[in-house]
Amino acid sequence: MPVLPPAVDKLATLLSRLPGVGTRTATRYAFFVLSEPDDYARSLGQALDDVLEHVRFCRHCHALSERQLCDVCADPTRDTTTVCVVETVQDLIAIEKTGSYRGLYHVLHGVLAPLKGVGPDQLRLANLEERLVALGAGEVIVATSTDVEGEATALYLAKRLAPLKVPLSRIATGIPMGGELEYLDQSTLSRALSGRQALTA
Amino acid sequence: MPVLPPAVDKLATLLSRLPGVGTRTATRYAFFVLSEPDDYARSLGQALDDVLEHVRFCRHCHALSERQLCDVCADPTRDTTTVCVVETVQDLIAIEKTGSYRGLYHVLHGVLAPLKGVGPDQLRLANLEERLVALGAGEVIVATSTDVEGEATALYLAKRLAPLKVPLSRIATGIPMGGELEYLDQSTLSRALSGRQALTA
Repeated sequence: MPVLPPAVDKLATLLSRLPGVGTRTATRYAFFVLSEPDDYARSLGQALDDVLEHVRFCRHCHALSERQLCDVCADPTRDTTTVCVVETVQDLIAIEKTGSYRGLYHVLHGVLAPLKGVGPDQLRLANLEERLVALGAGEVIVATSTDVEGEATALYLAKRLAPLKVPLSRIATGIPMGGELEYLDQSTLSRALSGRQALTA
Repeated sequence: MPVLPPAVDKLATLLSRLPGVGTRTATRYAFFVLSEPDDYARSLGQALDDVLEHVRFCRHCHALSERQLCDVCADPTRDTTTVCVVETVQDLIAIEKTGSYRGLYHVLHGVLAPLKGVGPDQLRLANLEERLVALGAGEVIVATSTDVEGEATALYLAKRLAPLKVPLSRIATGIPMGGELEYLDQSTLSRALSGRQALTA
């Protein structure tokens, strides 16, 4: 017995492709759209159009932007000698929110994952060396995740960028602020130990 | 520091109005849309348009439909002497999925909730009496929820429909299938006791 009109069913099916959304939640979203004034669905459709039309990748660092350069690359006050390599735009935003980094970024839009068919050519790496040379970069901070794929990507970058002789650093692994040693996993704890730093008064 | 392009921010803000979706999840959805081929955003926009354009409420029972009558009201094999009153289209779908009901429906699109400003005039009740008379209904099953508002609505319907002298019934309250008495709340258990039915071999 078909009970959902095809248009609603279609909408729910598309919404169910959103990350972490199953059929039930997608149907709930579709009904919410129906229950709102028409204006909501219209604005949402318009927002989707706008994103398609206006959002592009920064020509330099591949972050999102509505212009050729993103806000960070276009900001003359940023420190252009440091480049932080991140996996995703979300990671870039997370670092920006700390307010403690004033350098530039390079967004890979992924990590090396041979089993998923993601090799170096699938990452936005093509212009990285050229950029580092042009910027006269004095440091590259590799801020990929500390999972297996992120670590592998960090190692790959270290090898690939070695000929440039730019100092590379890896974002620190250790105990999160407010964390208790007792509950930490062994690998984090052993990395925190080996990465210990001089304590000065 | 603005990091999200305005178009992405707008999309995330609209998505954050979906039920149970906060800013974080909405941003995640927006990034998912960006990471998919353009086709996805385009289809989603089209689906929203289609819903706005094609989906309307059934003239008789107020369920969703792309025609004047919904599939249930248009089905000549349904038992037109029984009308089941439900709060939402989702409830109708849940009952349809059981496959054990062959009558018609009447969707209220809400429940009485004076504190939220929902009175009888805000529910789709205007044509209910007329419909019951026209159908020559022999039974009205009130299948609103068993929360306070659903119960109040059921009582209201009982009073309002009394002059029609159509037998009314209320969907049973009791122990869910597979439920264990030990873990049931007292009100369900006492309702299950008072609603006990003759057991025959």
